[in-house]
Amino acid sequence: MAAFYNPSPDGGIMRTGRAADVTAPTARYPFEVTLHQGAIENIFLDSMASMGVQVERPIVPTSIQLSADKAELKDPHSYPAKVVLKHLAPEEGHPDTEVVNAKFVIGADGAHSWVRKSFDISMEGEQTNYIWGVVDIVPETDFPDVRNRCAIHSTNGSCMIVPREGDKIRLYLQLTDSDVISPETGRVDKNRMGPEKLMQVAKKTFYPYTMHADKFDWWTIYIIGQRVASQFSVNERIFIAGDACHTHSPKAGQGMNASMNDTHNLIWKLSHVLRGWADMSLLKTYEFERRRYAQDLIAFDRKFSALFSDKPRTSENEGGVSHEEFLQAFQTFGAFTSGIGIHYAPSAVVNTTHQAHAPALVIGQRMLPHVFVRTADGRPFEVQDLLPADTRFKVLVFAGDTSDAAQLARVRRLAEDIEGGFYRRFGGQDPSKVFDVLALCSASKEKVNYTDLPSVFRAHWSKVLVDDTDMFSRIGGGGYDAYGIDKQKGAVVVVRPDGYIGVVAPYESIKDVDDYFAGFMKA
Amino acid sequence: MAAFYNPSPDGGIMRTGRAADVTAPTARYPFEVTLHQGAIENIFLDSMASMGVQVERPIVPTSIQLSADKAELKDPHSYPAKVVLKHLAPEEGHPDTEVVNAKFVIGADGAHSWVRKSFDISMEGEQTNYIWGVVDIVPETDFPDVRNRCAIHSTNGSCMIVPREGDKIRLYLQLTDSDVISPETGRVDKNRMGPEKLMQVAKKTFYPYTMHADKFDWWTIYIIGQRVASQFSVNERIFIAGDACHTHSPKAGQGMNASMNDTHNLIWKLSHVLRGWADMSLLKTYEFERRRYAQDLIAFDRKFSALFSDKPRTSENEGGVSHEEFLQAFQTFGAFTSGIGIHYAPSAVVNTTHQAHAPALVIGQRMLPHVFVRTADGRPFEVQDLLPADTRFKVLVFAGDTSDAAQLARVRRLAEDIEGGFYRRFGGQDPSKVFDVLALCSASKEKVNYTDLPSVFRAHWSKVLVDDTDMFSRIGGGGYDAYGIDKQKGAVVVVRPDGYIGVVAPYESIKDVDDYFAGFMKA
Repeated sequence: MAAFYNPSPDGGIMRTGRAADVTAPTARYPFEVTLHQGAIENIFLDSMASMGVQVERPIVPTSIQLSADKAELKDPHSYPAKVVLKHLAPEEGHPDTEVVNAKFVIGADGAHSWVRKSFDISMEGEQTNYIWGVVDIVPETDFPDVRNRCAIHSTNGSCMIVPREGDKIRLYLQLTDSDVISPETGRVDKNRMGPEKLMQVAKKTFYPYTMHADKFDWWTIYIIGQRVASQFSVNERIFIAGDACHTHSPKAGQGMNASMNDTHNLIWKLSHVLRGWADMSLLKTYEFERRRYAQDLIAFDRKFSALFSDKPRTSENEGGVSHEEFLQAFQTFGAFTSGIGIHYAPSAVVNTTHQAHAPALVIGQRMLPHVFVRTADGRPFEVQDLLPADTRFKVLVFAGDTSDAAQLARVRRLAEDIEGGFYRRFGGQDPSKVFDVLALCSASKEKVNYTDLPSVFRAHWSKVLVDDTDMFSRIGGGGYDAYGIDKQKGAVVVVRPDGYIGVVAPYESIKDVDDYFAGFMKA
Repeated sequence: MAAFYNPSPDGGIMRTGRAADVTAPTARYPFEVTLHQGAIENIFLDSMASMGVQVERPIVPTSIQLSADKAELKDPHSYPAKVVLKHLAPEEGHPDTEVVNAKFVIGADGAHSWVRKSFDISMEGEQTNYIWGVVDIVPETDFPDVRNRCAIHSTNGSCMIVPREGDKIRLYLQLTDSDVISPETGRVDKNRMGPEKLMQVAKKTFYPYTMHADKFDWWTIYIIGQRVASQFSVNERIFIAGDACHTHSPKAGQGMNASMNDTHNLIWKLSHVLRGWADMSLLKTYEFERRRYAQDLIAFDRKFSALFSDKPRTSENEGGVSHEEFLQAFQTFGAFTSGIGIHYAPSAVVNTTHQAHAPALVIGQRMLPHVFVRTADGRPFEVQDLLPADTRFKVLVFAGDTSDAAQLARVRRLAEDIEGGFYRRFGGQDPSKVFDVLALCSASKEKVNYTDLPSVFRAHWSKVLVDDTDMFSRIGGGGYDAYGIDKQKGAVVVVRPDGYIGVVAPYESIKDVDDYFAGFMKA
């Protein structure tokens, strides 16, 4: 959970409240865990290695060029990018430079992105005057909230605790100019600081509690700067992602989360284009969706950093930040750090026409978590677990009460419309590679057999679900109501490969789903 | 879930009901998964390998002897067992026989146990007349319950489906004598049967549904036999476990479950004796607890097999088995297969004197699952996850309302009594290696800091819990009520290393907990 401390009358700090880390009622995982970035990186590296992809590190790019030929840029089969790589430790007998002709280049090369600079993409935004120190420790302390995410607003300076794996915590400590600015140069001088000095700052901030550490895993100081790249791609052939296109305060790990979401958004689009399923125009939605999110994030971060760095409200400082103001910002902050606040605006891949047919499933936001029961064996499943990021569009057919003959007839007609429409038209030889169709019935588990559904809605016995409780009435049920979908009429909900809702339609307007796919897919 | 089929008027089968697999209200995992025994074995092998323990297979024991010297048998430091091993593929230059002098020997060597036979331990019980065939298939079928555990009582013979991993299912098919008994010898002849013939039996049983398979993973036929060894150990130096001491019907995997529970019961006791923590007498409780369980299991299995093999009740056969009779047996069966029905009788390690102080925590049964909230960071935890089988006794101090000064004083006195009693007396140099102490407070999370508790109750910040909901009011709370523990006075509950409740005491009788440990531990 989170705890908030403000100045106490005796000059120290006292707890003014506790709250949940994330308060969005739609959060599936309400308990955040802050993981070390290196550990996450290793998960990716291991997974890539298992699929034969190795990261080669002793290589630097020395030049990058993109063809200006419009026809070439438009041709999905062309290789308009040329990158020269230098091998720093070439194998015996191998040349030390290599020329790569590429269809696409992704520059996920950090805040000082060489790709970004090579194409003169500017960063928009500014630095602040807030200077912070960060130190990872295993504390010796009598501070009772040391295992909570804490915001400490003390007259001796502000501080944030982020609990880490094991017994470790990360302290973010507000520093003053005199701590770190060199009087000679007027610039930040890291040599003026050190972990022992940071702990002296912590000691004052935490008074009257003790806060001590003998060993230091890692420390740094930084000035908060918030900037967004003016463009995220060059002609949809060169892309930048992650820190290469946005920098902001490192508090609470937005950096890694936002960056992973950038490439999560880009990579399914790129996969669809490379496989010949989608038109090149799909790639324009990457910058459209992610740049706007980065701007929103940074606008919020600026506000939050100011609230956090400013002095707390006390009887001497009535213009300071109140606990309530801070708490509210902290909760919005949770929606950003958890990622559940992301909302993409209408585009080729977000069509909000029939939003009214599933009002709680906000088109452009992620699919809401809910537990449904698998018809074939009565097991409950979190629907999000049935929507893996496997590059397939998920077609969720809310089939209503299939135990009713009239509705079953409607469902059978819908199955014909879907098979006769986008499913075969854009699905190629094997549509199940492009589309994963699930049926969610509103009738009780006693009334539905998975064998009742048309075959296109049950490519496998596991694809048919009911909106009912499990055999123990412990979980499940109420999904239609939670999503706002009519239990008699049903609806069709298409979830994009990245888990965001792309389009909703009533059965009668299934043609609009055909049109949605026709907007970016190739027949 | 489970589904039940009985004869239909047209001579086929029809569904007569569906039910939960396991109906015990205290089950933590209501959804059973039937796993392949080989997969479980690999989990053990991998885990052992990570700790440097290798299973050596090309070795057979050729003789085993146990000293008859009473003094030697009583001395925990003696090596009274002598086993001669023959290496079938000795390494170059190594001898092919090896003599092992052992403190203890465990014969987990299956139904035809060589260890059991070497000591002339008899098997008590008998074979039945029920003959069954088993076949693993990936079915082609229109049977709607093919992914459920099914009991099919057809006039064409009985059948059970157990869903397996992936799309596989296991069919248990009742056979008639003419299917498998050789008219020449009058004995079961496996050559008269085969997977294709088993599928012909299935086809008749499932009529009017289709049931077809082209490939067969594995098949067998067996006659149900239910027997228990007359003793599970020889002088608590030679032990037998698993199939070596009980054989019963292979339906639904009781074999592996009961066998794993045998060694789970034995191994912590052996560890405590080998480490010098416990007296040799502790080992007597192994046979006491596990032989009785095996007898109960087999008595039930006999009844269940008869119900299942007998003809169903129909208008022509009014003396047959009714659906209700079968359903009730099926549910009791669930308590056996899941293991939550195990109840050990009073012994040196099960003391029921103060049962009234936690009436719902049945002493001799496993600790009941419940969610508590960790005080230091507000996270909910299933208490069973805090009680790993790490050979330590878990001392659960239900601390009541520690925000009340009088109760906190009682808790502090209890801490002194525990530290001054069994904790230091039987805990050796580092009592935290023998005892894991947790404090569970009844006050709300707002009122408790983990730093409030006496240090012996918080060897680590994670050891203090509250009986309250999490920050989202989603889970947790009501634990004292569920266990029947007084919220003002609290109680002490000791959970054995294998997860079974060993002793309960009110604070005032903490001396009885000292006595409990004194009954088998060494000071």
